[in-house]
Amino acid sequence: MSDTCPVPIGQYERVLMAHGGGGRLMHQLLERVIRPAFSNPLLDTGHDAAVLEMGGGVRIAFTTDSYVVRPLFFPGGDIGSLAVNGTVNDLAMAGAKPSFLSAAFIIEEGLAVSTLERVVASMREAAAAAGVEVVTGDTKVVDRGKGDGIYVNTAGIGVIGHLLTIAPASVTAGDAVVVSGDIGRHGMAIMAVREGLEFESTIESDCAPLAKPALALIEAGLDVHCLRDLTRGGLASALNEIAQGAGVGITLAERAVRVREDVRAACEILGFDPLYVANEGRFAAFVPAPQAARAVEVLQAHAACREAWIAGSVSADMPGRVVLHSVMGSRRIVDMLSGEQLPRIC
Amino acid sequence: MSDTCPVPIGQYERVLMAHGGGGRLMHQLLERVIRPAFSNPLLDTGHDAAVLEMGGGVRIAFTTDSYVVRPLFFPGGDIGSLAVNGTVNDLAMAGAKPSFLSAAFIIEEGLAVSTLERVVASMREAAAAAGVEVVTGDTKVVDRGKGDGIYVNTAGIGVIGHLLTIAPASVTAGDAVVVSGDIGRHGMAIMAVREGLEFESTIESDCAPLAKPALALIEAGLDVHCLRDLTRGGLASALNEIAQGAGVGITLAERAVRVREDVRAACEILGFDPLYVANEGRFAAFVPAPQAARAVEVLQAHAACREAWIAGSVSADMPGRVVLHSVMGSRRIVDMLSGEQLPRIC
Repeated sequence: MSDTCPVPIGQYERVLMAHGGGGRLMHQLLERVIRPAFSNPLLDTGHDAAVLEMGGGVRIAFTTDSYVVRPLFFPGGDIGSLAVNGTVNDLAMAGAKPSFLSAAFIIEEGLAVSTLERVVASMREAAAAAGVEVVTGDTKVVDRGKGDGIYVNTAGIGVIGHLLTIAPASVTAGDAVVVSGDIGRHGMAIMAVREGLEFESTIESDCAPLAKPALALIEAGLDVHCLRDLTRGGLASALNEIAQGAGVGITLAERAVRVREDVRAACEILGFDPLYVANEGRFAAFVPAPQAARAVEVLQAHAACREAWIAGSVSADMPGRVVLHSVMGSRRIVDMLSGEQLPRIC
Repeated sequence: MSDTCPVPIGQYERVLMAHGGGGRLMHQLLERVIRPAFSNPLLDTGHDAAVLEMGGGVRIAFTTDSYVVRPLFFPGGDIGSLAVNGTVNDLAMAGAKPSFLSAAFIIEEGLAVSTLERVVASMREAAAAAGVEVVTGDTKVVDRGKGDGIYVNTAGIGVIGHLLTIAPASVTAGDAVVVSGDIGRHGMAIMAVREGLEFESTIESDCAPLAKPALALIEAGLDVHCLRDLTRGGLASALNEIAQGAGVGITLAERAVRVREDVRAACEILGFDPLYVANEGRFAAFVPAPQAARAVEVLQAHAACREAWIAGSVSADMPGRVVLHSVMGSRRIVDMLSGEQLPRIC
């Protein structure tokens, strides 16, 4: 990041909810406190998964996420399916075939055993659907009032079977941005439950495993430069990260943006911009522009990606910036969020 | 486990602190709720780390633990060094050379940034000492009152360079049990702080990386049948797990048990049995009895294992049981703890 103040982070001496929101404050926390402590070339790629050479020509991807979503159960998913799919998808974004997961639980004293059973059953189903095995785990219990039911951490290992360098630094002018489906459903599914909003139909999370469609792009022979899932901070934050990481400008066409009507309505009621709302089953793929239509075609063969669309293009102009061409013909910069939009969305 | 009641776990419909204590209740939770959901041969080995075949002749170990210790800082360590060494040691117990770690933080809103800095600095130092790199991570923030400062999860990958099958099932009659040092320090260091006990000298945690001494046993050509670190539930629980996993009996000689005087005093004051107190830098190695003296010699060459001792022997008698031969000449069964002795010790 360009800002180089020492810690404390800006004016903050204490961690705020916003530091976990996927926006600029979270990036400052990572860039100024956490990354410097562990600085090494593997961590510094700024990718969701580390790519590790294990000898014998074996390359694997390795990633982790903790899940603190509330409520634990929501339309279209729960903390268990989220914990499996989130980590599976981080592996897929390195172009890896997800193979093995760990599962670690921090349980608050008093959690109903039946709730734990529902969570692990959901994890089992999600793991089976994604073709991964949970091979190791851990369980801790914390005092009542020191947790929130259950937190789940998963780490994952995937096998990389290609020779591409799929990373932000590979994105270049002339690339197209292909997005795998309509955006904003996961965040609005959660918020609709929390706020008690009712629509004609229930908004369901898009939570889904993305390895098959992501790997299909590679198997189709496309020159995949980068893959990025659109989780905390949504499409806007993901594109800002890539624009900054690659030193390129990204242009989005507002006309093309795919948002379901009920999601758009929920966003309007709650004052959210769907570009910033978290997804758990959507990703952006960066491929050379001439391959964009083929990428959409490949993605649309998968149920989770029927609504894949070409979202924008990459150029050398305005490096580090994301610009939206509005329906009205104006242009505006789509910045990274400052802080938190949706707390505990994943 | 022999008990086959369906869930709810015994008479419990809710998770208790004791379900995280490393004793019988924790085993019931794992055996009846969590393991059945994910049942597969890799998970079912009952080992701290899964051993994975990655192709190309590459075998790796993979493990995870969450750390919820309180207080965050204690004599001899803190949640950061614990989170690194604990996972490094789980890899070492598979005979793997620890290589890569993930680090995931669940931070309670309001945590001082300076505290986070101390934790990550400690992790960096511990990682450097253990020769591992933190290559991927995650940060989540939860609302005030929904956490306890900071929880840390680490997962780890290690490379297996030997052809041994280091697992409970490899333990057999005629093996000796070698323990790498005096026991009970980690648990008593934590409890002395919590209870405000003062001794002439401060009891410091034994928290230390164990990969070098553990791998030295293998490099010395010893027939290492099993390695197990003596964390939650202490030496007694670890031996019970092995006795049950291997279907063997284990005999301990009380006379040989190494416990520092201040640790023994703290145990007496607080009513703990040092056999059940958690360690974070101690392990048991199972080798054929004729190799036990050599194993002790190899271990004692390492600073963390200067006090290595021969703790007992394995036989076909009383399978699944651990028996203590007391100084007075009597014999008593050292059972697995029912529930919790020391909450949130790691």
